[in-house]
Amino acid sequence: MPHIALNSAEPGIRGLLRYRPETAGPLSELAEVLLRGPSTLTRGERELIAAYVSALNDCRYCSSSHSACAAAQLPGGMTLVEQVRADPGTAPVPAKLKALLTIASAVRESGHAVTGEQVAEARAAGATDVEIHDTVLIAAAFCMFNRYVDGLATTAPDDPALYAAGAQRLVMQGYVAPPADPGREG
Amino acid sequence: MPHIALNSAEPGIRGLLRYRPETAGPLSELAEVLLRGPSTLTRGERELIAAYVSALNDCRYCSSSHSACAAAQLPGGMTLVEQVRADPGTAPVPAKLKALLTIASAVRESGHAVTGEQVAEARAAGATDVEIHDTVLIAAAFCMFNRYVDGLATTAPDDPALYAAGAQRLVMQGYVAPPADPGREG
Repeated sequence: MPHIALNSAEPGIRGLLRYRPETAGPLSELAEVLLRGPSTLTRGERELIAAYVSALNDCRYCSSSHSACAAAQLPGGMTLVEQVRADPGTAPVPAKLKALLTIASAVRESGHAVTGEQVAEARAAGATDVEIHDTVLIAAAFCMFNRYVDGLATTAPDDPALYAAGAQRLVMQGYVAPPADPGREG
Repeated sequence: MPHIALNSAEPGIRGLLRYRPETAGPLSELAEVLLRGPSTLTRGERELIAAYVSALNDCRYCSSSHSACAAAQLPGGMTLVEQVRADPGTAPVPAKLKALLTIASAVRESGHAVTGEQVAEARAAGATDVEIHDTVLIAAAFCMFNRYVDGLATTAPDDPALYAAGAQRLVMQGYVAPPADPGREG
């Protein structure tokens, strides 16, 4: 049960966005720019970074939701997402993405945990400065979203089909879609 | 030296906001709503929560900047800010703010570290649900901002006078002021 009395039964961040529309605006816009805006990283790759960080933070709602979004937009689907969540080092992803996931994992621990060597490795694997920037900010942003969702003890459905259906809507409509549809999975 | 080549010599988050205007928009709006928007928590109290979390995260730029903003807007000034940073438990702040700082500290550790007892204590001290919500989101947001600033190894000035001057501008103009003035301290 959430720590505060929300104004809907919507799970995870959806209930929080509806509760406080003043903060929902910039939070939704941030997710949209980071995960779906113009970028040389694919939407699937960016959702994968979000899912990976959320899983490391043990945030069930966010990791389930963004794993479903990544799976829906990556050729490897949920199998690949699960391989990355289990161990990015051995998952069949390109060296550049592997290096970016290493940076994301460091950011999750602390900003100070990111090393020049990690950045150099990502650059050697072909990552641009903007890709490194965006990886750091995606990882940092999910350290916020995860704490927001779990710090207020929001609920998270168990059924993977709900997250898959939500991902289909997010892939179609994005994160800034009008919140009128109560079936939207965030 | 920052991990990536920024397009200005501005320190801390200011250089990052200038580098990536696409993400600067929602990030600045989030700071404005959380720290200066309509709220029953004063602007000084909210800046204090931001400064406290940033200090716990050992983020020199953010803790210096938001300590200066808190000091500029709290009757107790920098003396009170330093007392809170040293130990909120013994600092001369009201019980409600003390309880909210306890929640902020838990959020910094992990969303899962926030307990029903901490929330009940805040409520018993007079905190509303919206105040508890905003405290959790401010603490979570600074877990993002701190990781963003340090994860990219941005620079931080040493001179406290620079942060004090920056705080005066932020108090006057807020976080969404046009970034044209290169003297603005963020």
